[in-house]
Amino acid sequence: MGVTATEAANPVGTLDFYFFIGSTYTYLSVHRASALAAAAGVRLNWRPYSLRTILREQDNSPFLGKPDKLRYMWRDIERRAARGGIPFAGPAPYPTDPESRASHVATLAEAEGWCEPYVREVFRTWFLDKVDPGSPQVLAGILARVGQPADVLQRAESPEVAARYAAHTVAARARGVFGSPSFVTADGEVFWGDDRLEEALEWVGSGR
Amino acid sequence: MGVTATEAANPVGTLDFYFFIGSTYTYLSVHRASALAAAAGVRLNWRPYSLRTILREQDNSPFLGKPDKLRYMWRDIERRAARGGIPFAGPAPYPTDPESRASHVATLAEAEGWCEPYVREVFRTWFLDKVDPGSPQVLAGILARVGQPADVLQRAESPEVAARYAAHTVAARARGVFGSPSFVTADGEVFWGDDRLEEALEWVGSGR
Repeated sequence: MGVTATEAANPVGTLDFYFFIGSTYTYLSVHRASALAAAAGVRLNWRPYSLRTILREQDNSPFLGKPDKLRYMWRDIERRAARGGIPFAGPAPYPTDPESRASHVATLAEAEGWCEPYVREVFRTWFLDKVDPGSPQVLAGILARVGQPADVLQRAESPEVAARYAAHTVAARARGVFGSPSFVTADGEVFWGDDRLEEALEWVGSGR
Repeated sequence: MGVTATEAANPVGTLDFYFFIGSTYTYLSVHRASALAAAAGVRLNWRPYSLRTILREQDNSPFLGKPDKLRYMWRDIERRAARGGIPFAGPAPYPTDPESRASHVATLAEAEGWCEPYVREVFRTWFLDKVDPGSPQVLAGILARVGQPADVLQRAESPEVAARYAAHTVAARARGVFGSPSFVTADGEVFWGDDRLEEALEWVGSGR
């Protein structure tokens, strides 16, 4: 997986990376964020949350029912992946993970310290194998590939994990997050979108 | 107003700049686009169109009824204006130009060759004087400041201008435009957002 930002010895600051498994642009950030944060000396906190809940509350449907925007989104991701040297194989299944299983596992992983390798494999599976990562069968394969035991699937459906996922969602909402990826600084600045990652890191690095 | 890209002697290509008076992020592009296009040797075609019509058709309300997104938008523009050395004086009246008068004048201006200085003055008035540029009184002042006669206001409400504005909107829709600013290349690539301007210019310059 390479060096992760959380291993930085003396970080200049921290950045909370609020992400949702199901957000397409998040694929780009899952690929880029750790290396860029490490290079900037910024510690990155991976925070799975339910963007689906917030979008419903805010009557915000970014792509569904909007075919022109949907088509543009896939083309834009294709171009930005090409610019960034990120593998891309065309549109992936969308929407995905309807029962939020993959997100619940991400929350357990975040509590236990293996969030990043798991989420990277989830997005790789979704985008490059082009299968919905949320089915129990696909999730079992993902967990095996990142060296986690099969009982994770059951533990991820516990009330404790659900409460943790809900708490992240409450925190995201309170901080003004309404999209994924969102990068939130310690002083409360929100940067929405993979294309704002560099600005977020600069903000933290400049000590503002 | 500085050198405009349309004066480039041997442009490497052209870029259609679809914009709507009423789109807040468009302020940044109105400030930046000509100089960047000129530096890239790209001819910029200013194309006023009715984004309002397209948003209504697509049930797409980017900010109204979405207070968190609206607040983020103003903060994001503030930060990006600061990064780009663009004057900014806080949130401007929004929405604006409800009767599309300022857009009709932009369409007449585009037909007659004075679109850019007019639109720059419209956005300056809207963002820095913080008044709705669409009222006849405010428009009269804008026209005076860019050296246009007062009868423009009347001529801009002609059926011919309305037809030209509608034709630009039809063309924008056909090309997949659903937001402002949008930059469309001769080979049909759409780049949506001020933050995609550089990528659009690179696309044209690379001859793809």
